Amino acid sequence: MRMGEGHMSEDKKMSDIERTARNWLQERGVTLQDIADLVYYLQVKYHPDLKMDDCLENVDRVLAKREVQNAILTGIQLDRLAEKGLIEEPLLSTIQVDEGLYGVDEILAFSIVNVYGSIGFTNYGYIDKKKPGILEKLNDKSSGMCHTFLDDLVGAIAAAASSRLAHRAANTE
Amino acid sequence: MRMGEGHMSEDKKMSDIERTARNWLQERGVTLQDIADLVYYLQVKYHPDLKMDDCLENVDRVLAKREVQNAILTGIQLDRLAEKGLIEEPLLSTIQVDEGLYGVDEILAFSIVNVYGSIGFTNYGYIDKKKPGILEKLNDKSSGMCHTFLDDLVGAIAAAASSRLAHRAANTE
Amino acid sequence: MRMGEGHMSEDKKMSDIERTARNWLQERGVTLQDIADLVYYLQVKYHPDLKMDDCLENVDRVLAKREVQNAILTGIQLDRLAEKGLIEEPLLSTIQVDEGLYGVDEILAFSIVNVYGSIGFTNYGYIDKKKPGILEKLNDKSSGMCHTFLDDLVGAIAAAASSRLAHRAANTE
Amino acid sequence: MRMGEGHMSEDKKMSDIERTARNWLQERGVTLQDIADLVYYLQVKYHPDLKMDDCLENVDRVLAKREVQNAILTGIQLDRLAEKGLIEEPLLSTIQVDEGLYGVDEILAFSIVNVYGSIGFTNYGYIDKKKPGILEKLNDKSSGMCHTFLDDLVGAIAAAASSRLAHRAANTE
Repeated sequence: MRMGEGHMSEDKKMSDIERTARNWLQERGVTLQDIADLVYYLQVKYHPDLKMDDCLENVDRVLAKREVQNAILTGIQLDRLAEKGLIEEPLLSTIQVDEGLYGVDEILAFSIVNVYGSIGFTNYGYIDKKKPGILEKLNDKSSGMCHTFLDDLVGAIAAAASSRLAHRAANTE
Repeated sequence: MRMGEGHMSEDKKMSDIERTARNWLQERGVTLQDIADLVYYLQVKYHPDLKMDDCLENVDRVLAKREVQNAILTGIQLDRLAEKGLIEEPLLSTIQVDEGLYGVDEILAFSIVNVYGSIGFTNYGYIDKKKPGILEKLNDKSSGMCHTFLDDLVGAIAAAASSRLAHRAANTE
Repeated sequence: MRMGEGHMSEDKKMSDIERTARNWLQERGVTLQDIADLVYYLQVKYHPDLKMDDCLENVDRVLAKREVQNAILTGIQLDRLAEKGLIEEPLLSTIQVDEGLYGVDEILAFSIVNVYGSIGFTNYGYIDKKKPGILEKLNDKSSGMCHTFLDDLVGAIAAAASSRLAHRAANTE
Repeated sequence: MRMGEGHMSEDKKMSDIERTARNWLQERGVTLQDIADLVYYLQVKYHPDLKMDDCLENVDRVLAKREVQNAILTGIQLDRLAEKGLIEEPLLSTIQVDEGLYGVDEILAFSIVNVYGSIGFTNYGYIDKKKPGILEKLNDKSSGMCHTFLDDLVGAIAAAASSRLAHRAANTE
């Protein structure tokens, strides 16, 4: 049971926004476990006794934040509209080819990383370059799907969860 | 003629992205003059001899930045898709009513303000609360149009142009 | 026992960093009540039944965040070193006169505002321009003290507490 | 005569702030070549014909920005004061041991990266984790020097120069 910030009492039903954000991640092929694997990848060197359950718990708590849910909904919506061709040119091509100078995908991602402070930025940058696990799959352009926003969102959720885990481990908040 | 950064030689045709960003602003009812008026409003107290031409020039230079163009295209596209009902719920309602906790409109705006450094943030926050000139018009919900992103983008362009003007006036870059 | 993020149970002794950050604010003439007054100033128009106790509680919770404490310590330390002349030129003069293009004070402030998301930025910008209450006092250069960082930190804590309060009021986290 | 943003013609004397920022980097053991090497490391895979001269030129232009100079002066000043023990506890220890949860060093670094937009963040995060070249040297704690801020500043300058180079290569600004 959650107590304190981000807390949701048992009798309050999850908000429509939170439920939709979690569903959309799943529909786009990203599970909580996929993101927890990224957290483990990032953090095990600093915490050799790290348990996967702690990774999962921290991902879950990041997803309980409204700012994070709003970024997820907006980014996945743009990916989907690009797949359907409902975005106008030249923005459509920019998103479809994940153009390196676009930057709006990174901007949405930072709004997620920021929620647990600046220490998450290096983790975000690192996995965005290395593309372990689910990030490699999302970057496979042969799937016919557009994940221009999703891959950055997923990396950012993992980075934010890593920051939260590091703060907890140090008992600082 | 422009020389140096953001420069575009006379014979280089404006990129498709830049031309579209400028057109979309116009189509949504925002002229360069409207934004220059905001710059004048923000800066005349610090520079009593401020000329409107300098305000216009600085707005023009902000619009020559690729990051700014990408934010404009993405934000206006989302406003338009919301008007057409092509965004899914609950994101559609969030954008249509300009929900105070959404925050993605501000995030896009900051990516514009950031281009000329942190000194622009207070100007952005200030006009966003005061809503002078074109910002009041964009916030008039009775128009039937959705300007959830546009009003923040316009305030941000004005704030960035003010920062640029302040740096120039101080001869610092 | 720890109950939720940022919370501190009665029997856990406050960390050295947290205690010092709170003490330094006090030593520089800023009380929790001063900051709560700013929150009230920013939020009463949206929440007519707003209680001062809620403002105080939200300020207290912002101060429990490690990122916030680190920004406070660093900013106040720089103010103090500038008063003592222990900063080297030309940085010393830049800080002593609160030079408008410096920007590092705003950067530290944003790291505080960010903790509760992008919706706090406009509140920060607004009070930074209007300078109500304690902010006016901190900007009085006749005191002989240097508050280049402190005034931005205080505005940022108030803005972050306002964001937290708004999220709570909407029951979103 | 000034030609374009950030540029400085030969007959204009460099501002005191810029000259000091460049000198302090040198005094702390970081040359323009060291930073250009990082740019080359980050960019050669995308631009196989990359010339070292282009890397140097882009680093030089990043250093011509006032926001960058202010961040450099503030960060190196804090490193130096920490070496001399002129920072008060518990901030002194936090900086001396480069405590992982501090985050203010990253915050200053982001203000540099931001100057050329969001695309620089992943480069920053990447080299911060990999620590090639000069970054490895700066992280060697056995030197007795404190480079808590400097290593992040140097990585950020390299990331910003990489963004500038990428924008130029694409002819976007």
